[in-house]
Amino acid sequence: MPTLAPAHELLAIAHQLADAAGAAILPHFRNLDGVEGKRHAHLAFDPVTAGDKAAEAAIRAVLAERRPEDGVFGEEEGHEPGTSGLTWVVDPIDGTRAFMSGVPLWTTLIALHDGERPILGMIDQSYLGERVWACEAEAWARLSGERRQLTTRTTARLEDATLFATDPGMFREGGEDAAFGALSRKVRMTRFGTDGYAYAMLAVGQLDLVVESQNAPYDVMSHIPIIEAAGGVVTDWAGGDAQRGGQIVAAANRAVHGAALEILREAAQKAPPLPFGKG
Amino acid sequence: MPTLAPAHELLAIAHQLADAAGAAILPHFRNLDGVEGKRHAHLAFDPVTAGDKAAEAAIRAVLAERRPEDGVFGEEEGHEPGTSGLTWVVDPIDGTRAFMSGVPLWTTLIALHDGERPILGMIDQSYLGERVWACEAEAWARLSGERRQLTTRTTARLEDATLFATDPGMFREGGEDAAFGALSRKVRMTRFGTDGYAYAMLAVGQLDLVVESQNAPYDVMSHIPIIEAAGGVVTDWAGGDAQRGGQIVAAANRAVHGAALEILREAAQKAPPLPFGKG
Repeated sequence: MPTLAPAHELLAIAHQLADAAGAAILPHFRNLDGVEGKRHAHLAFDPVTAGDKAAEAAIRAVLAERRPEDGVFGEEEGHEPGTSGLTWVVDPIDGTRAFMSGVPLWTTLIALHDGERPILGMIDQSYLGERVWACEAEAWARLSGERRQLTTRTTARLEDATLFATDPGMFREGGEDAAFGALSRKVRMTRFGTDGYAYAMLAVGQLDLVVESQNAPYDVMSHIPIIEAAGGVVTDWAGGDAQRGGQIVAAANRAVHGAALEILREAAQKAPPLPFGKG
Repeated sequence: MPTLAPAHELLAIAHQLADAAGAAILPHFRNLDGVEGKRHAHLAFDPVTAGDKAAEAAIRAVLAERRPEDGVFGEEEGHEPGTSGLTWVVDPIDGTRAFMSGVPLWTTLIALHDGERPILGMIDQSYLGERVWACEAEAWARLSGERRQLTTRTTARLEDATLFATDPGMFREGGEDAAFGALSRKVRMTRFGTDGYAYAMLAVGQLDLVVESQNAPYDVMSHIPIIEAAGGVVTDWAGGDAQRGGQIVAAANRAVHGAALEILREAAQKAPPLPFGKG
């Protein structure tokens, strides 16, 4: 494991990365067609791709200046190895379909990986000015200008639980869809359409379960330290390490995690190895 | 038809209603458990019911003072007839599941009905400070502090269209679910989890279709004047009047509406009559 800077120094970098990404993304969100005097610009280009690329470039520029020894693994530009043993894992815009539709639930996901596991996570929604982050003992949210400590719910039974997933179509036929359906029939309420935003709401105690499939490593890496620091559990559907992506179950606590896993485990599959580190 | 005040006077009332509702709702959104020093208050009461009731009471108080001659039809307190021939139709919190889960896509819906049809509509998201409204020639959105004229997309083919619905479970088995599934397979992209917010995004040109079922009249009344003023079309699945709720198809333009209706029409059902007016 590499020698680490103190948590507050690493978090200061992460905040700078999220700020830079947000500044790069926002001009592309709900582009200006419809604003008085502006033309229908959305027909001419792809705003989500433009925002994604601009944000990842902004993140890489900050890292090149402040952390040139660290590796970077990003959705857009892939893996650039470093020498420190640390890798920043970034998804500049998670939730591209929300972004394209003007729905402000897309997020910028930032994680720092020490070669074995993610040790820092940040979920940022720059249009809302909302940010959730964790590194070691620091686990905070900033919502509506108010700082609150992350803490998950104590809901123990599926019958009382709120379940989220990005899309019902993300579950493969012939197993995954049946397992998710069985879980959905057990819980109090199921809701779709949230991408990384649901994981942030789980960490601030607003919901109990996020169950998904077909995630990339950069879709989930940031969520693991955040939800664990908040008191929750994140694993794959077999109860193993979640950082490779694939099938994910994020839960508010061990009790509701265990109850969900009983249903999901029969459809569990192994995710491919990470393209960096030993994790 | 009753004698009407000018559109700007009616809209001034609607803005006051939305302001009052937002002020009543916001203290209940993401209640303070998790904030430093606060107890887990969410176990003690139901914040969405509290917010719903407080907002409708606030709306009715404004109307009692400023428009005592008008009727009111609200989700919480039902129908209170008036003498003017006008009825305010309000859903204080549309999207209660989003509200309960900390997801800021719930909205306050306000419409004014002249006995035959809705003549004014407003969709307000008070946490985001976003509002969309229309009455006669006035059709505006206020998003991120910026005012823009409502205008829908020109997408003509389903293959290029973005489709939204609140929940895949809202479609009844044995017809509705098959029709929605067939439509979903035709479009470019389907997304869930939006309630009234999707109709606002349709009116500002961010998406093409919202197709739903099992709506109440107060779920859809505000959307009709807004989307029509923006250039779109709102009907039931048979192509008829949408104001009774039930099965709704809101479309960015006549072309994409017609294409969607070809698929939906076979599962069309009649909604029950309105509990007020002649509509």
